[in-house]
Amino acid sequence: MDIKQYVTEKGKQAKAAARGLANVSTEIKNNALVKMAAGLEKAASQLIAENKKDLKAGAEQGLSNAMLDRLELTPERITAMADGLREVAALPDPVGEVLKMWRRPNGMEVGKVRVPIGLIGIIYESRPNVTADSAALCLKSGNAVLLRGGSEAVHSNTAIADILSKAGAEAGVPEGAVTFIENPDRACVMEMLKLSQYVDIVIPRGGEGLIRMVTENATMPVIKHDKGLCHTYVDNDADLTMAKEICMNAKVQRPGTCNAMETMLVHKGLAPTFLPDMIAAFRKAGVEIRGCPTTRAIVSSVKEATGADWDTEYDDLILNVKVVKDIDDAMEHIAAHGSQHSEAIVTKDYGKAMRFQREVDAAAVFVNVSTRLSDGYEFGLGAEIGISTTRIHARGPMGLEELTSTKFIVLGNGQIRT
Amino acid sequence: MDIKQYVTEKGKQAKAAARGLANVSTEIKNNALVKMAAGLEKAASQLIAENKKDLKAGAEQGLSNAMLDRLELTPERITAMADGLREVAALPDPVGEVLKMWRRPNGMEVGKVRVPIGLIGIIYESRPNVTADSAALCLKSGNAVLLRGGSEAVHSNTAIADILSKAGAEAGVPEGAVTFIENPDRACVMEMLKLSQYVDIVIPRGGEGLIRMVTENATMPVIKHDKGLCHTYVDNDADLTMAKEICMNAKVQRPGTCNAMETMLVHKGLAPTFLPDMIAAFRKAGVEIRGCPTTRAIVSSVKEATGADWDTEYDDLILNVKVVKDIDDAMEHIAAHGSQHSEAIVTKDYGKAMRFQREVDAAAVFVNVSTRLSDGYEFGLGAEIGISTTRIHARGPMGLEELTSTKFIVLGNGQIRT
Repeated sequence: MDIKQYVTEKGKQAKAAARGLANVSTEIKNNALVKMAAGLEKAASQLIAENKKDLKAGAEQGLSNAMLDRLELTPERITAMADGLREVAALPDPVGEVLKMWRRPNGMEVGKVRVPIGLIGIIYESRPNVTADSAALCLKSGNAVLLRGGSEAVHSNTAIADILSKAGAEAGVPEGAVTFIENPDRACVMEMLKLSQYVDIVIPRGGEGLIRMVTENATMPVIKHDKGLCHTYVDNDADLTMAKEICMNAKVQRPGTCNAMETMLVHKGLAPTFLPDMIAAFRKAGVEIRGCPTTRAIVSSVKEATGADWDTEYDDLILNVKVVKDIDDAMEHIAAHGSQHSEAIVTKDYGKAMRFQREVDAAAVFVNVSTRLSDGYEFGLGAEIGISTTRIHARGPMGLEELTSTKFIVLGNGQIRT
Repeated sequence: MDIKQYVTEKGKQAKAAARGLANVSTEIKNNALVKMAAGLEKAASQLIAENKKDLKAGAEQGLSNAMLDRLELTPERITAMADGLREVAALPDPVGEVLKMWRRPNGMEVGKVRVPIGLIGIIYESRPNVTADSAALCLKSGNAVLLRGGSEAVHSNTAIADILSKAGAEAGVPEGAVTFIENPDRACVMEMLKLSQYVDIVIPRGGEGLIRMVTENATMPVIKHDKGLCHTYVDNDADLTMAKEICMNAKVQRPGTCNAMETMLVHKGLAPTFLPDMIAAFRKAGVEIRGCPTTRAIVSSVKEATGADWDTEYDDLILNVKVVKDIDDAMEHIAAHGSQHSEAIVTKDYGKAMRFQREVDAAAVFVNVSTRLSDGYEFGLGAEIGISTTRIHARGPMGLEELTSTKFIVLGNGQIRT
């Protein structure tokens, strides 16, 4: 069978499952998730054996230690994967929620009801837990999923997907609801992106190169989880202790994440008192500071920030510092250099808090909160399939609700159009 | 300037306007819409003169009379266009609505707020009123719009867009908020579809060919308004008078629309009493009937429906009739042949009404209501930019709300991640 035919068959099979899955009860879906969790735990030694094949091939191909680490399955990681499935089982089912319902002058009732989207394509790299994690969120929200993992994890992913499929079928979930493309040929991805008749939306989970490739070639809507170049603006009306804690947390708590702060903006009236202490604290935490001329005039040892620095997502212990004239100047900088991901202000002033919250264009806007809290779990969504930076109806951290669409239901007693 | 550069400049200019527009007050937007309406009415004779150029060129190129009719601007149509703008001004502004807000255990408040999507691309054919109509809906929902009309209407569209832009700027709307691509070169469309860095979503408004071309080439999410192959299932527990009225309305009130009925499904227990009268009534209304073998056994003069008929959107006074065993058989047929647009059941049975409403997969599902009511105005959305058949977060009739995205706002007092 050629690649096109192979991938098309997979898509068709998954789409067929989607139809049945939309009407599967919450009980069956939860049961399937619990069985999947047990299946993974029971097959731990088999999973680890399959994973060893990937690790061996990866080492031979010269993957970095960081990549090999992400690829590795340990008993602890398998338990964590299973726990993740059980957590999703415990979440409320988003399907069937009536978002609103109203009566029209002609007496008919029109309602908007949450329904699954249909078939969701997920294209991801390295970490095999994404297989279980994505499948669980799609299943719980009533969607079938077509999974395509990185070729470096093909043995691990195939084994995981196989266990999930079998456990799902046992619980009464339609076959094909979790469909995995196990052929490692890269041409499969291109074929998958052409399947707009089956795949309703596609979510790439990986680096910039993967996201660009998917965006350029997909024939269906893409929900991207793009870069995060986040700012914190410390206003002259800030509580300084709070500002220091928030900025420190936003930079150092986990600098490699997309919601970490890359640039700190400080009001000019505050800079002389705030910056020396703050910069000293950052340095103590191992952070390299790159500053604007005013910052350097206050703390002379600070390195100069070049033009490109303001547009760089370091994902590392490096921070740009810029002194700004006022909140407008801060928001101008954010609009020019931010990635519309997560942006924060620290202030005690009500008016400035309201303006920032209203005027800043980002998936999540924070007042007196660390940008590190930009996360589905922290927001209370119960789960997260990613943080959408696509300007579509789902934006920011995406939980189960963001994996649903709606349909209109209209209940009448003989209404016709005149 | 080459085409690529020309279109890119247009996109850049419109995207720049989008940022400012997101924070423009409702008052300014409404003012702009009212000024636009007045501008169109004032320039009626100029618009008609420009339109004459299009009509002349169209006649020379051999456009059909139906197409020339769609293209024509009359004083009445210009007034209707202006009235449409004033109606949009009178609708509530969707931007800023807090959809929900909740408190997290750490004390921070997380809210989801409606915001504009950004820059919306609209690619359309023939009718020049789409220019004013689309611009109004995008403007009211705080979005900039990049318009690309059919080359056959280029003079009319350019003149309309020009009036809208000037009136908008006068009212304080950022320049570029309504940007029109006036170069009739078809290559402009392809370049527009590559502008994913500026255009956030694209909505094609036109025939199947246009929709396919846009879907295949767009690098941003496409919201399609695809074909409608709609069914009405007349259950054995139907009120027969109501069933007759609903079916008649769904077929003949305006057969050329996407929400008209193409196939009537009738329960076998009802067929012998219902079909003879119903078919006679349809024929009196000029409807050609194509039936399944059972239908033809009941009304022998009915023509045989071939395989392809069940999958054809006639948009005409032709109707397929099929006798089904029960509701399951009806829903099977709908799943196999429907276009997930609008589907109806006529029944007095509560259980069957609930099952149909829940299990049928379509953008709009009707109980005891004609599918012709599948429409943004009829639903009370106040406006309609189209009926989305894309399985995305906006599905079915799309009004102003469906032209918005959301952002998270997080209000705290020093929360950090631990």
